[in-house]
Amino acid sequence: MAAVKLLGASLSPYSCRIICALKLKGIPYEYIEEDLLNKSPSLLQYNPVHKKIPVLVHGGRPICESAVILRYIDETWPQNPLLPTDPYERAVALFWIKFADDKTSSIAMMYLTTGEVQEKAAKECSEMLETMEEHGLVEGKKFFGGDEINMVDIAFCLVAHWLGVIEEVTGLKPFEPHKFPKLNSWIQNFKSVPVIKESLPGTKTMLAFFKGRREMVLASKSS
Amino acid sequence: MAAVKLLGASLSPYSCRIICALKLKGIPYEYIEEDLLNKSPSLLQYNPVHKKIPVLVHGGRPICESAVILRYIDETWPQNPLLPTDPYERAVALFWIKFADDKTSSIAMMYLTTGEVQEKAAKECSEMLETMEEHGLVEGKKFFGGDEINMVDIAFCLVAHWLGVIEEVTGLKPFEPHKFPKLNSWIQNFKSVPVIKESLPGTKTMLAFFKGRREMVLASKSS
Repeated sequence: MAAVKLLGASLSPYSCRIICALKLKGIPYEYIEEDLLNKSPSLLQYNPVHKKIPVLVHGGRPICESAVILRYIDETWPQNPLLPTDPYERAVALFWIKFADDKTSSIAMMYLTTGEVQEKAAKECSEMLETMEEHGLVEGKKFFGGDEINMVDIAFCLVAHWLGVIEEVTGLKPFEPHKFPKLNSWIQNFKSVPVIKESLPGTKTMLAFFKGRREMVLASKSS
Repeated sequence: MAAVKLLGASLSPYSCRIICALKLKGIPYEYIEEDLLNKSPSLLQYNPVHKKIPVLVHGGRPICESAVILRYIDETWPQNPLLPTDPYERAVALFWIKFADDKTSSIAMMYLTTGEVQEKAAKECSEMLETMEEHGLVEGKKFFGGDEINMVDIAFCLVAHWLGVIEEVTGLKPFEPHKFPKLNSWIQNFKSVPVIKESLPGTKTMLAFFKGRREMVLASKSS
């Protein structure tokens, strides 16, 4: 049995968070792709509360919830730290990770709905981007924490890589690069980090999958 | 200027989380009551993203989001630790704190709505209680982390103290003690800790306030 296993789904941004962290730390792991329409007994056993990926299994013990897994990885393997050592700076980073957890759901909402509900979600997504631009990123710094990538950048991978695909699928455009210059630079910087680049799923595969899934979800709602 | 200031609202469970932690740590602090209908310039300046209490100000620097503040307090003042030292046990604790953050909103929803939406919220609240009973608490242990109170117990203060009041205000009863024996014992244990007992707001004041507020909210919706 591998010491570290990851139960994930290749097109999930929450799985991607964990893959990025494990790779940045240089931790070898066994990856197990879950079929989310037919969840494995292992997944149901490891995460009986939420029954969701990702689950990290370390030495046979499961850790659930991607933000919790990120903390566990950083505490267990201290090389290439993903959080600042100063408690205040760390609190600021944790504030933004919580913000990412709470607000990026607007992107999923925008993707899975139509009409007024979708418009509301797109508006919430715009407001999230405005807050990231105005309060989260600092002019001249490459990443959220300064010149090195950290846990906050990873937590926002949904904005960096998934949002563009969802925009293409839905035809909505909450992210207009000229309105968000800092965010636009950050996305380029984030995706240029070799470990991140190789961890993000391909856009073509994502587009095909998310288009199909949206059609399926909307058809099931209207029937 | 006091080294530690807390901007809070006396009947907020999120403020209460911070008061409990500061008192368990024995940290003196200056408490500033915020009028949530007329927020102070300080609050808006310290928490420009969410404009919400609680905010902890330490050495002039603000920390926002109650779960983040709890972590900051525990890291800054290590006496009477509020989280286990073992990384795995700590991840389990953080899982439950995230669960509390995500799921206890059903109580607020139950309180602020009527009809179908309220019924749905009450159902979600029941499911939350079932999960806490089945997966969170261990038979024969006084608290979530064992025999000592920790951050998870504090994070669930909304369930321990606010839920009963909201039940009385709404006439709904998702918490039936005979269905949740472990949870029922935990509530008694939690409220028996002297520092907690003295930190929880009085039930009479809460009842009057929450009844009035519910009427006000419903009136504004129907007009």
